[in-house]
Amino acid sequence: MSSRIRIAIAGYGNLGRGVEAALERASDMELVGVFTRRDPQKLTLQTRGVPVHSMDRIAEFVDAVDVLILCGGSKADLPEQGPALAALFNTVDSFDTHAKVPEYFAAVDAAARKAERVAVISVGWDPGLFSINRLYGEAILPEGATYTFWGKGLSQGHSDALRRVPGVAGAVQYTIPSQEAIEKVRSGSRPVLETRDKHTRDCYVVLAAGADADAVREAIVTMPDYFADYDTTVNFISAEALAREHAGMPHGGFVIRSGTTGEASSQIMEFGLKLGSNPEFTASVLVAYARAAHRLHQQGNIGAMSVLDIAPGLLSPKSAAELRKELL
Amino acid sequence: MSSRIRIAIAGYGNLGRGVEAALERASDMELVGVFTRRDPQKLTLQTRGVPVHSMDRIAEFVDAVDVLILCGGSKADLPEQGPALAALFNTVDSFDTHAKVPEYFAAVDAAARKAERVAVISVGWDPGLFSINRLYGEAILPEGATYTFWGKGLSQGHSDALRRVPGVAGAVQYTIPSQEAIEKVRSGSRPVLETRDKHTRDCYVVLAAGADADAVREAIVTMPDYFADYDTTVNFISAEALAREHAGMPHGGFVIRSGTTGEASSQIMEFGLKLGSNPEFTASVLVAYARAAHRLHQQGNIGAMSVLDIAPGLLSPKSAAELRKELL
Repeated sequence: MSSRIRIAIAGYGNLGRGVEAALERASDMELVGVFTRRDPQKLTLQTRGVPVHSMDRIAEFVDAVDVLILCGGSKADLPEQGPALAALFNTVDSFDTHAKVPEYFAAVDAAARKAERVAVISVGWDPGLFSINRLYGEAILPEGATYTFWGKGLSQGHSDALRRVPGVAGAVQYTIPSQEAIEKVRSGSRPVLETRDKHTRDCYVVLAAGADADAVREAIVTMPDYFADYDTTVNFISAEALAREHAGMPHGGFVIRSGTTGEASSQIMEFGLKLGSNPEFTASVLVAYARAAHRLHQQGNIGAMSVLDIAPGLLSPKSAAELRKELL
Repeated sequence: MSSRIRIAIAGYGNLGRGVEAALERASDMELVGVFTRRDPQKLTLQTRGVPVHSMDRIAEFVDAVDVLILCGGSKADLPEQGPALAALFNTVDSFDTHAKVPEYFAAVDAAARKAERVAVISVGWDPGLFSINRLYGEAILPEGATYTFWGKGLSQGHSDALRRVPGVAGAVQYTIPSQEAIEKVRSGSRPVLETRDKHTRDCYVVLAAGADADAVREAIVTMPDYFADYDTTVNFISAEALAREHAGMPHGGFVIRSGTTGEASSQIMEFGLKLGSNPEFTASVLVAYARAAHRLHQQGNIGAMSVLDIAPGLLSPKSAAELRKELL
C-alpha cells in the first residue's frame, strides 16, 4: 500500500468544507492543509490537527501537496487563481462559467504545461457528470436530441450573482424544472424546448438598507447569462426569513438523450441527480477527480484536462482488476 | 480530415445487423466487410456494396480492417473468438457473462498484447454503461449502496425456459422492475432488497392444442431458479397475438446510487435506459467504442481494456476542444 495522497484546499467556504468532509471518507487520501485569504487564526476547521495557512504563503508548500483542490468561485476567484495555482500544483477546480470554458482551459493549460503539472478543470456535476452524460448520449445515439433540466435546487452560481447586485444584502436562487416538459422528453417525442420552457428561476432577496427594490429587481432580471433569458421571479424577504427558510442547499437535475436507432427504434438514456447538499456533492466529485489527477500526473501526463478526458476507473481507489471483477 | 475508420463485423445476427445500422449514422466510419460462419452467398445485408466473407478467410483481411466488432454470443462464440481475433485485429466485443469477465479479460489481453492490438471487452449497457455508472456512484459517494434494476425487458433465458414447459407452444417473458422498490430506493431510505423484491416476471404464453392452462400455469410459477422466487404472472394469448405484439426486443433498467455526504445529506445518482431495441442499442455502444479502440491503438496503446479504462471523450468524433466548448 503506497502512502496516502496529500490534498490541500484553497478557499474555505461551503465547497471547501464539503471537500474536507468528503476526504474523511477517502481512506487513500489525507488533508494536509487549508489555504485562506482570511486570517488563518480565525478559521475553525471541522477536522482536528490540520494546519490553516495564509494564501500568500502557498508557494512554500509545493513539495508538501500532491493535489490542490481549488474551492473559490468561478466569477471572481478562479480566472486568476486557476492559472496561478496550476503553475505550482496539480489542481482540480469546479470552474462553471460554461461560456468561458475555452479561454479558461487555455490559460490553465499553458500554466500547467510550463510547470509540468496536471490541472483538471470544470469538475462537479454541471459542468462535470452532466457533461459526461451529454457526451455518452450524443456519441452512442448520434441521431437524437439532448435535454438538460436543472433543479429543483439552489444554484450557488446564480445566488452569488444575485449577491453581487448593488443593493442586495442576501439572496438565494432556486431553479425549478418543468415536470410537464420532462415527461414529454421521456416519452421520446423529442419536443423543441427553449431553456425558458424548461425552467423558471425563483429568487429570494434581502434588500440592503436604503436600496431601491425596483432597481434591484430590474438589475437581476436583465442580467445576461444568468437571468435575462429566463422567466425570473424576485421575492423580497427579511434577513430572518432567509436564514430560517433558505439555509439548505439542495439541487439536482436530469440529462436526457432521446435517440433513434435502426429504422425507427426509440432509445432513451437518462442521468439524474437528487442532491441533499449541492456543495457537498460537488466536493465529493472534486475529491474523486483529485485521485485521478494524482494518478495522471504520476503516469507522466501534464496540462489541463476536463472530466471528458479522464477514464472512469481513475476515480476509484480500487485496482483495474478489482473494478472489472466487481462492477462489469 | 483523415480517412474513415474501416470497420468489419464478425457474426451477423441481431447484434451484427444493429452494428451495420449504427454505422450508417457514423460519418467517420465505414463498413468494409462482414464475416460469417454461414454460407456468405446466402447472407443479404441491409447495406449495398459491402462484401460478405467466410469467417475462415478472416486472417487475409488484417491490413484492410481498423477495428473488428465481434457480434457473437458470450456463451458459445466469444470465449474462443475473443482471444483468437484479438491476435489479428483491434476488437470490440459485448462479452456479458459477468462471473467470467476476469478469465476472459486475461485471455484476450494476452492475445492482444502479443499482437500489439487493442481489445475492448464487455461493451454494451450491462456490462458497459451500467458498470460505468456503478463506478461513478461508488467513487463519488463512498458511503452508500448501489442498486441495479432491469427492465421492462424481454429476457431471452426466461423465455426459453417457458418454451420448455410441456403444453407451451410459444412464449415470451418480460422482467418488470418493481415501481415500489424503485421509489423506496429513490427516497434515499436505502432498503435491503433481494432480486425477487426488485422485479416481477410477466409471461405471455401460447398453449399447445389440448394443453391444460392451469397445469401449465402451475408448472411455470413453481419452476425453481427461474420463477418460483418471483411474483410471476402468466397471461395466455393466441399465436397471432404473440407474433403481432411481442416481436420487439425492448429492454432497459436503472442503476441508482444512494449515498450520504457530510453529516447526513442524502445524495441520489440515477442512470436509466428505456430501449426500444436492445440489440440496436448495444450495437450503437459497440460502434462508439470501436472509434475509441482505433484512437487508442493509434496512440500506441495495446492490450485488453474495458469501458472503465476509456475516457468518455474518445467515443466522440468531435475534437477535445469542440467537446469542451459544446458539452462542458
